Amino acid sequence: MKITLLQNTSLKTCAFAIRTCWQSHEKSDEGGQSDKDLIAKVGNKFKHGSTLEHLNYTFYIEGISRALLQELARHRIASLSVKSTRYTLKELKDENEFLVSSSKDSTRANKYLVFTDNPLVDKMSILALENLRLILQEKIPNDLAKYCLPESYKTSLTWTINARSLQNFLELRSSKSALWEIRALSFKIYNALPEDHKYLFEEKLTRDIMFEKNLED
Amino acid sequence: MKITLLQNTSLKTCAFAIRTCWQSHEKSDEGGQSDKDLIAKVGNKFKHGSTLEHLNYTFYIEGISRALLQELARHRIASLSVKSTRYTLKELKDENEFLVSSSKDSTRANKYLVFTDNPLVDKMSILALENLRLILQEKIPNDLAKYCLPESYKTSLTWTINARSLQNFLELRSSKSALWEIRALSFKIYNALPEDHKYLFEEKLTRDIMFEKNLED
Amino acid sequence: MKITLLQNTSLKTCAFAIRTCWQSHEKSDEGGQSDKDLIAKVGNKFKHGSTLEHLNYTFYIEGISRALLQELARHRIASLSVKSTRYTLKELKDENEFLVSSSKDSTRANKYLVFTDNPLVDKMSILALENLRLILQEKIPNDLAKYCLPESYKTSLTWTINARSLQNFLELRSSKSALWEIRALSFKIYNALPEDHKYLFEEKLTRDIMFEKNLED
Amino acid sequence: MKITLLQNTSLKTCAFAIRTCWQSHEKSDEGGQSDKDLIAKVGNKFKHGSTLEHLNYTFYIEGISRALLQELARHRIASLSVKSTRYTLKELKDENEFLVSSSKDSTRANKYLVFTDNPLVDKMSILALENLRLILQEKIPNDLAKYCLPESYKTSLTWTINARSLQNFLELRSSKSALWEIRALSFKIYNALPEDHKYLFEEKLTRDIMFEKNLED
Repeated sequence: MKITLLQNTSLKTCAFAIRTCWQSHEKSDEGGQSDKDLIAKVGNKFKHGSTLEHLNYTFYIEGISRALLQELARHRIASLSVKSTRYTLKELKDENEFLVSSSKDSTRANKYLVFTDNPLVDKMSILALENLRLILQEKIPNDLAKYCLPESYKTSLTWTINARSLQNFLELRSSKSALWEIRALSFKIYNALPEDHKYLFEEKLTRDIMFEKNLED
Repeated sequence: MKITLLQNTSLKTCAFAIRTCWQSHEKSDEGGQSDKDLIAKVGNKFKHGSTLEHLNYTFYIEGISRALLQELARHRIASLSVKSTRYTLKELKDENEFLVSSSKDSTRANKYLVFTDNPLVDKMSILALENLRLILQEKIPNDLAKYCLPESYKTSLTWTINARSLQNFLELRSSKSALWEIRALSFKIYNALPEDHKYLFEEKLTRDIMFEKNLED
Repeated sequence: MKITLLQNTSLKTCAFAIRTCWQSHEKSDEGGQSDKDLIAKVGNKFKHGSTLEHLNYTFYIEGISRALLQELARHRIASLSVKSTRYTLKELKDENEFLVSSSKDSTRANKYLVFTDNPLVDKMSILALENLRLILQEKIPNDLAKYCLPESYKTSLTWTINARSLQNFLELRSSKSALWEIRALSFKIYNALPEDHKYLFEEKLTRDIMFEKNLED
Repeated sequence: MKITLLQNTSLKTCAFAIRTCWQSHEKSDEGGQSDKDLIAKVGNKFKHGSTLEHLNYTFYIEGISRALLQELARHRIASLSVKSTRYTLKELKDENEFLVSSSKDSTRANKYLVFTDNPLVDKMSILALENLRLILQEKIPNDLAKYCLPESYKTSLTWTINARSLQNFLELRSSKSALWEIRALSFKIYNALPEDHKYLFEEKLTRDIMFEKNLED
C-alpha cells in the first residue's frame, strides 16, 4: 500500500479557531510552539474535541484490499471516493495472458491483489483473479462479474478525515486486535501526516516495534 | 435477501417533535391524518429535514452480498452492526463435503453465496467458495483466509437509520443506474416499512413495475 | 426544567444488533442480564461505540433557558426540534399586565424566564422581558423583537440522541466546569432514562451529592 | 458582520478525489475547466454529494448576533468554535462609562450589539446591555450575568464546513422565509468564497437584487 497526503489544514488555522473562544488571537505565534501547546491542551486534555475538527487531511490511499475497505468505510465521519469496480474492471479485462506463469512469478498478479504471505490463500486469490479475467473476456457486464471478485482485490481511495475522527481511527485500528492490514494502514497514515501534526496523534497509537519495522521492509 | 423491521419510532413522536416548534401539541391526533399531513408538509415540502430525524428504523438485513455491503456502508448517517468474517467463517469450515455435487445442485452453496443468475459468474463464485472451505480446513486463520473470499459471499447486518437518511438512500439506490442488488434492497426496505410510514418515502422511489415484480418471485 | 422521556429503543434491539456480528442470536435472553452484560462489554469496554448507536432516546425538555440551548445545540450528533421564537412570541404579547407586581411576586415572570437566584441578574431579566412585552404590543414583528430577548428566556425542545452521543454529552456536561444549568440538565436527563439503561451511563457522570440533592428540591 | 475566508481546499483536490472512482487522474487539468466541469457533473448533476465533502472551507465570522448563532448551530455537519460569553464578558465589564450618551450616539453600543434598525427594539437592547454592564461591575460571575444578555449581543466564530453541507445551508438560509440576519449571512458567505468555487453554489441561492444591494451599503 502507498499513502500520499494530498492536502491538510495548517495548525495555525486550528489555533485561530480555538483562540476565537477566548478572543486571544493576538497571542498566536502562527502555528508555533505556543499554538501547538494550545491545541493539545484544549483539544486533547480538555476534551474539546470539536476544535480538532477544523484540521482536515486528504490522503490518497493506493493498493489496499477490498477486505480492508470494508472496515475503513465503517469510520463514518470521513469522506471516501473509491475506485469503482463497476467502472474500472476493464483494467483486468485488458490483460491478455494468464497473470501467473508456470514459473510461479506472481508479480503481475500482485498488481491486482494484496498478498497475505500465506501461499495457499494467495494461490486461491490468484485462481479467483484468473477466473474473473476469463469472465470479463466473455463480455459479462462488470455488475455481474464483480460478484466473484476476491476480497484481496486491490483498490484505491481518496480519503478526507478530520483530526478528531482520525484520532478515533488510529486508536481503534492500531490496536493489536485489529486486522493486520488495517493495522498497517494506521501506522502508514500516521507516518504520512505532516511532521508538526504528529504530536496530536502520538498517544493514540498502540506501538509495537517489531510490527512497525516489518512495515518498512 | 430477507428484511425484517425490528423496531421503529412512531409517527406520533415525530409529530410531537414538530409541534414543539409551534407549541401546537393540543392539535395532535396521536399519529392520525392531521399528524401525518403535518410531517409531510414540514419534513418534505418545507424541507425541514431535521424533523424527520426523530423517526428511526432498525432493520435486520439477511443474505445480501459483501459486494452490496461495500455500497451500503457508504451511507454514513446510519449505524451498522455486521456479521463479521473474522468471527464467523467457522460456519464454512464446519461443512465437511463439497458444497456443489456433480449433479449441479447449488442449494447448499446458495446458503453462502448470492447468485447473479449468470451461470459463469456463479460457477466461479462457487469455486472460490470451495477453495475457501478447503483453506479453512487447513486451519489457516480467518484473518488470512478471508482474503480469498468472493464478494458474492452472503452477510447480514442490523441497520439503524433515520427517515431523512433513508429518503436519501432510497432516492439514490432505487435509481435505474444503481447496482441491481442494492436496487432490489431499496425496494425491499421500502416494503418492510410500517404501512403508515410509506407515504413519506413513496416519491423518492424510481418505480419500475417489471423490476419490482421480479422481486416478488 | 422538566424532562420527559417520549420513547426509547429497547436493550433487546441493541443486543440483537451486537449479536449480528457473532451470529449468536440464540444466546439472547431478550434484554436480560446476559444481553445487558454483552452491551456493556462490547459497547463500553471494547469501545465498539457504533453498537450503542442503535439505542435512540427522544426527550421532551421544557423550561431551559436559551443560554443553555446555545450549548446544547453544539452536540451535533442529535436531532433537535425547538420552540421557535419566530412563531411563538405571541404568548408574551398576549399578557396584558405587567409581569411583576409591586409586591415582588415573580411567579408570572417565571413562566417565561429561568432564574439564576441572583436577585440582580433576575431583576434585569425581568426588565428585559417587560420591555419585550411592550415592544410586541406595538406590533413589531417577532423577527425584529426577538433581538432584545434575554437569554434567560425559557424554551422547550424535543431531542433525539443515541446512547453513544449521550454518553459524550453526559461526560462533558456533568463536569464541575460545565455551566450550572446544563450540568443540572445532564443529571435530569440521566434520571429520566429507563432504569435498566442507566448502567450504560453511570460511569460517565461526575457525581456530586450536594449538587444532585439541590436538583431534587 | 464581517466574513473572512481563512482557508479552503482546492478544486484540484476535489477533482482528484472524483477521478479516483474512474482512475482517470491523467485527464485532470489541475483544477481547470475540465476539472470544474467534472465536479459540477458528478457532485451536483449526478447527486454524488459525498464527492463535494472533500472541499472544506474555514470562515471567520465576526459581528453576528447570538440570535443568529442559535440558527447557525443547527447546521450540524460543520465545526464551530465560538467566542464564549463565559470567558469574554470582561470586555463589557471594562467599559467604564454608559455606552449610550444623552446625544443618542449608539456607536459604542454597536460594538456589542447587532441593531435591527427598529429604534424601539434597539433601544431595549441597549438598555439590557447597560444593565448587563452594571451587573458585571458588581462582580457577579459571568455564568450568572450572561442570563440577562440580550440575543442581539454580538458574537464571533470560526466555522469549518464542507461544500455539500454549505450547499444545504445556502439553499435553506438564502430563502425569503429565512430570518433577515441569517439571510444576509448566507449571501456574505457566498461572496467570501473563492471566485472559482462560486459556480458550485450559484443555483442554491434565492436571489433578490434589492436585498443584496442593501448588504453592500
